[in-house]
Amino acid sequence: MHSPPRGRRLDAVSGPFTPRTPRVAAARRLHRRRDRDSTGRFLAEGPQAVREALTRPGLVVELFGTPAALDRYRDLAARAATADVPVSEVTDEALAALTETVAPQGLVAVCRHLDVPLDRALTAGHRLVAVLAGIRDPGNAGTVLRTADAAGAGAVVFAGDAVDPYNGKCVRASAGSLFHVDVVRAADPVAVVAALRAAGLTVLATTGYGDSDLDDLADAGRLATPTAWLFGSEAHGLPDELTAAADARVRVPLHGRAESLNLAAAAAVCLYASARAQRSRPTGPPTKESVRP
Amino acid sequence: MHSPPRGRRLDAVSGPFTPRTPRVAAARRLHRRRDRDSTGRFLAEGPQAVREALTRPGLVVELFGTPAALDRYRDLAARAATADVPVSEVTDEALAALTETVAPQGLVAVCRHLDVPLDRALTAGHRLVAVLAGIRDPGNAGTVLRTADAAGAGAVVFAGDAVDPYNGKCVRASAGSLFHVDVVRAADPVAVVAALRAAGLTVLATTGYGDSDLDDLADAGRLATPTAWLFGSEAHGLPDELTAAADARVRVPLHGRAESLNLAAAAAVCLYASARAQRSRPTGPPTKESVRP
Repeated sequence: MHSPPRGRRLDAVSGPFTPRTPRVAAARRLHRRRDRDSTGRFLAEGPQAVREALTRPGLVVELFGTPAALDRYRDLAARAATADVPVSEVTDEALAALTETVAPQGLVAVCRHLDVPLDRALTAGHRLVAVLAGIRDPGNAGTVLRTADAAGAGAVVFAGDAVDPYNGKCVRASAGSLFHVDVVRAADPVAVVAALRAAGLTVLATTGYGDSDLDDLADAGRLATPTAWLFGSEAHGLPDELTAAADARVRVPLHGRAESLNLAAAAAVCLYASARAQRSRPTGPPTKESVRP
Repeated sequence: MHSPPRGRRLDAVSGPFTPRTPRVAAARRLHRRRDRDSTGRFLAEGPQAVREALTRPGLVVELFGTPAALDRYRDLAARAATADVPVSEVTDEALAALTETVAPQGLVAVCRHLDVPLDRALTAGHRLVAVLAGIRDPGNAGTVLRTADAAGAGAVVFAGDAVDPYNGKCVRASAGSLFHVDVVRAADPVAVVAALRAAGLTVLATTGYGDSDLDDLADAGRLATPTAWLFGSEAHGLPDELTAAADARVRVPLHGRAESLNLAAAAAVCLYASARAQRSRPTGPPTKESVRP
C-alpha cells in the first residue's frame, strides 16, 4: 500500500483526473442512452473522431486525454483550447472508464447532439438520403451511415425504433461520418416517407421480395433522380406499411446461390448504384441518328 | 440431488449424448483450428447451414440435434439418414458445447473440409473470383464470401495468412455460401495472382490509393471480362507486392467526406460492379451512325 505523497490532499484537483473526479464520472454516464437523452450529449473516442468533432463549431463540450495522448495529439488539444473547449488530463484508469474500445488512443470528447429536424435536412436539397428504419444493431447502423457518406448522401435518417445514433458502437462504426452528414431522428417512419416524397425525392424500399430489380431501375434511368433509400433490420426487414408507402420495392439481384445479402453489403450496392447513376451523363432514349438502319 | 433411474448405467449410451460422450467431445474439439486442420473436419451449426451441407454428397460426417430440433427438422434428419450419415440426439448441454451462437436452433453437423486446389477451381471457367488476402477477421471474411456468392462469383480464395474458412464465425457469417462456391486455400498470394492471370482473368486490386477509379473502369468496359478481385484486411490493406502484381489498382470513389469504406461495403460495390458489367450487353465504341453531326 502506498501513502499519498506528503502534503498532497486527496480531494484536491491536482494531477490528472481519476474515474472518481466528478466531471469524469458525469461524462462516463453518457455510455447510457438515458443519460445521453437527458443531457443531449454523447462521447466520441479516439483521435479521428475527436478531430472530426472539432471541425464543427460548438459541438465539443469537453476534451479528456491522457498526458501522453495530449502530447502526441497536441494539435487537437490546441484546437480545442482555441475554441474555448476545456481540455483535461485524465489517468489511464479514467480514460478506460470513459471509452469502450481496447485501444482508444488516449482521447475522448464530450459532444453535443448534432441531429437536425427532418424539414431542415430536406431544405438542404440533398439528392441522396438513407433512412434506417428500425435498425437496432448499432454496428450495422454506423456502417450504413459511413457507407451513405461515402456514396455522397447528404442526410441519414434514424427512423422509428432505430438505434440511438449516439450509441458508442454506432459512433465508432460510422468512422467519423456521424459528423459529415445531416443526421435526423424521427419517430414515425411513415411520416418520413411522406416528407421525403413531398420534397421531391423518389423513395425506394430495399427488400429481398421487391418487384423491381436494381439493375433494371438503373438501366431505365430511374436512379438518376434525387432518391431516398429505405433500409430495414437484417432480422425483420422493412415493415409492410413502409414498403407500401415507397415509390418502388427494390431487390438487389442475387446472381449466385446466396439467399440474401447482409445489410451493409445491400446498402452499399444500392447507394453506390444511385451515386453512379446521378453522376452519369444522361443518355436518354436513342436519338434518330443513333438508331442503326 | 437426483439418483439415476433404477437399472440405468451411467456409462451406457442410453438417451441423448451428453458433453462427455466421446463423439460429442471429439466434435467439440473442432472449435480449435488445430483440430480442424488435423482432422480435415469442421462444424456447421443451425438448420440453414445443415441443409446446405447436406446438398453436397459426402460432405456431412455426422449430425447432432436435440430431440426437439430433430423432430422439428425431421426432413433434415431423414435426408441425413438416407445418405447414411449418423444422426444422434444430444442434450441441450451437449448442443451448447458444440455450438457458439446463443440460439443455434438445436442442430450441428460435422462436415469434411470442402476446399479445392486453385488449379481445379480455375479449370471451372469462373468469370468472377474473389481473393481474400490476409483477411484475419472471420466475420469480415465470411461476409465477403457471402457477398461474392450473391454477386455470382464461382470461387473464393483464402490466400496467405487469411483466416481459416472453417472458423465457426466465418462459417456463420457466410450464411451458407461456404457450400455454394469453390473455396480455395492457398499459401502464397503472389502465386495465386500469377495463376489467375495465366487462366485469363484480369486481376484487380482494391486499394484506397488506387490509380484507377471503379466507375472509370466500368465506363471503359474493362469490367466486362473475367475478373478476380483482391481484397486485403481492413487494418493493413493489401501488401505492396500484391497490388504491384495486379493488372490495376482500383479505388472505390468516395463522393462524400468519408475517408474509406469498410471491407464488406467495398467488396460489395466492386463485385456488383463486375456482375453488372459482365451481364450488360456490350455497347462498344460509338458507331458512325450514332455520332451526332
